[in-house]
Amino acid sequence: MPPFDVPEGDPFGPHNLPYGVFSPAGSQERRVGVRLGDHVLDAGAAAAALGSPYVSLLARPTLGPLLAAGRTAWSDVRRALTAWLTVPAHRETIEPLFHPLSSVTLHLPFEVADYVDFYSSEHHARNAGQIFRPDAADPLPPNWKHLPIGYHGRSGTVVVSGTDVVRPSGQRKGPADPAPVFGPSVRLDIEAEVGFVVGVPSAQGEPVALGDFREHVFGLCLLNDWSARDIQAWEYVPLGPFLGKSFATSVSAWITPLEALEDARVAPPPRTHPLLPYLDDSGSGDEPGGYDLRITVAVNGHVVSEPPFSTMYWTAAQQLAHLTVNGASLRTGDLYGSGTVSGPEPDQRGSLLELTWNGRDPLELPDGKRAFLEDGDMVTLSAWAPGPGGVRVGLGDVTGRVVARA
Amino acid sequence: MPPFDVPEGDPFGPHNLPYGVFSPAGSQERRVGVRLGDHVLDAGAAAAALGSPYVSLLARPTLGPLLAAGRTAWSDVRRALTAWLTVPAHRETIEPLFHPLSSVTLHLPFEVADYVDFYSSEHHARNAGQIFRPDAADPLPPNWKHLPIGYHGRSGTVVVSGTDVVRPSGQRKGPADPAPVFGPSVRLDIEAEVGFVVGVPSAQGEPVALGDFREHVFGLCLLNDWSARDIQAWEYVPLGPFLGKSFATSVSAWITPLEALEDARVAPPPRTHPLLPYLDDSGSGDEPGGYDLRITVAVNGHVVSEPPFSTMYWTAAQQLAHLTVNGASLRTGDLYGSGTVSGPEPDQRGSLLELTWNGRDPLELPDGKRAFLEDGDMVTLSAWAPGPGGVRVGLGDVTGRVVARA
Repeated sequence: MPPFDVPEGDPFGPHNLPYGVFSPAGSQERRVGVRLGDHVLDAGAAAAALGSPYVSLLARPTLGPLLAAGRTAWSDVRRALTAWLTVPAHRETIEPLFHPLSSVTLHLPFEVADYVDFYSSEHHARNAGQIFRPDAADPLPPNWKHLPIGYHGRSGTVVVSGTDVVRPSGQRKGPADPAPVFGPSVRLDIEAEVGFVVGVPSAQGEPVALGDFREHVFGLCLLNDWSARDIQAWEYVPLGPFLGKSFATSVSAWITPLEALEDARVAPPPRTHPLLPYLDDSGSGDEPGGYDLRITVAVNGHVVSEPPFSTMYWTAAQQLAHLTVNGASLRTGDLYGSGTVSGPEPDQRGSLLELTWNGRDPLELPDGKRAFLEDGDMVTLSAWAPGPGGVRVGLGDVTGRVVARA
Repeated sequence: MPPFDVPEGDPFGPHNLPYGVFSPAGSQERRVGVRLGDHVLDAGAAAAALGSPYVSLLARPTLGPLLAAGRTAWSDVRRALTAWLTVPAHRETIEPLFHPLSSVTLHLPFEVADYVDFYSSEHHARNAGQIFRPDAADPLPPNWKHLPIGYHGRSGTVVVSGTDVVRPSGQRKGPADPAPVFGPSVRLDIEAEVGFVVGVPSAQGEPVALGDFREHVFGLCLLNDWSARDIQAWEYVPLGPFLGKSFATSVSAWITPLEALEDARVAPPPRTHPLLPYLDDSGSGDEPGGYDLRITVAVNGHVVSEPPFSTMYWTAAQQLAHLTVNGASLRTGDLYGSGTVSGPEPDQRGSLLELTWNGRDPLELPDGKRAFLEDGDMVTLSAWAPGPGGVRVGLGDVTGRVVARA
């Protein structure tokens, strides 16, 4: 089963080449890996064996140096990797440097600097508005169509796919309760999102223009913004989500470079409101800001939703321009989430809040009803995008099991 | 002018010994420094010269290793430093290792991991409520007396005292405006706060109890949470402050260890509402959670306010217990701000928002009226605390000048 012979049409074929950080079986050492099919190439070892100048970027315990190296280097390294994996002359050198995916330990692939989460799906925002403010004339807040609403989250609790998520405890208070009560969250939810990874930093005081998105952002990954709805509801006025979100955020072990997603670029939905110049992407017809990513949300292996990322109102380029327009600087390793991805259809909603309409209509799973997550539930986010010649580009899964606090 | 002869009663005498990171004149190298009067001791060089085992914590370019070392090490190092600075036999060795404060460059003393900002002054919260929600029956949000409200800020834009602050641009929209406009903030404000620096990390899923505050928190510093009120007002519903705050947060170059503030510990104000057990400090009479810090806010050298930190409703220990009660982990270098410090009197308010009542009553400064900050304005926060025998413990100033974007 030589890895070079990855089956035709495999979503992790040589057209994809996502990056991660792994430890080989029996080792604690961290190494940059590139996924090919069901194998991981030790990229640093490959660079060293082939005398590549990119050994300084790849023979590292984190993706940080590669992220910081910038767009030209990203392209050059990708071109080199493609050659190593497809030119028969390299086969003898490269093949021993593969590890079966099932044999390695995958790590958080980079140190998360600042983590920001947006709220950029119109369908999600409308659903949330209707659920929480049923009497409002407009379910969207008045600023929603003018800027991509976002907030900072806790970067220290971003964890890699496969990490158990301890059910958080906290304060909650129902409208009829005289005082808040304390205990494990009883409304633990998921948010299916896409995370964008910043490579190239920017200086404080210097906004990043809409057109410079791909000079700074290296790639993307799936992201599960776990949310305790009961904790969040009681705490979030007036300063926003805090403990309802900060206990854990799960990301894929694999970062898909934007270069692998050229065929997935699509125009975002038509804009219904005029945009201020720094957000106005109406003139960028050949630089569509959207990505056609088809996400699947499963609970205990049962598919509960298929959110289409192409329906997001605000693009990642707009989010980056907004994030920096006040002069806030970027650092290598900054991560920002798209916000919950929900499409227009009921089976395209990216949270249980919306799928069960705040618990009113529980999901019927093979193992019972679910209003919110139960201890032991395993959540899996997966996705693919259209690739070259109709081949799919697979994104790395994000899995996480809910466990009670010991 | 030998540094050992720091005048009796100097607020930076040997009873204080705050830590920072400096570069000597003409050097780019970063070193841990300890302030004594108007001088900085090269602490790593002192440890090396005296053959101290603490050279591994002090001969570093950042406070990180010392912060991570834990409470016993913090005490041991402080005891060693006190001996080096007060035992005459060390004088010949130590004296050449001082640098005049005016000759060195001071740096951000540690890498900020996550930055959280609280909202824990009742006077500030009541003022803000009256200003923004004049028709509300209660100016405090319903959760305010049950939990210390907080949110995550941007750690990548925390800067050291003395760094210029570029006036941020962004969207703003008055109630009568048909659509938002874009431009430099016209309501740039300060928030006088105290920042707490976490040394010892905690595990994800494991809350830090109220009584373990001083096992994790190393020390404190002054903090200016610059705020663009117009940007904040338009963006903050429903997910909280974002660009109105994320452009810059200034902290003192000197971290005062909690051990230097034993004589400043005071009981917080009486609690008006019963607290859930994880926040209930009513039984900790010998561990009062408050600190008596006397803050001064000056604009262009003119004192505009003197906020008393002893009036804060929520203590730093309660903030830490709340921050982690959902299982969120701590990292070395986590920083959390107290929230704007405002006392009960009009001249004790820690923001221009309150001092000018949202611009209605401009301050009369020697150089003209101020509703909010103008370009060129220099803001200085300073503070002292009661120390042993009535001597003051000085906190490092936080200064910052507002500049227009170039």
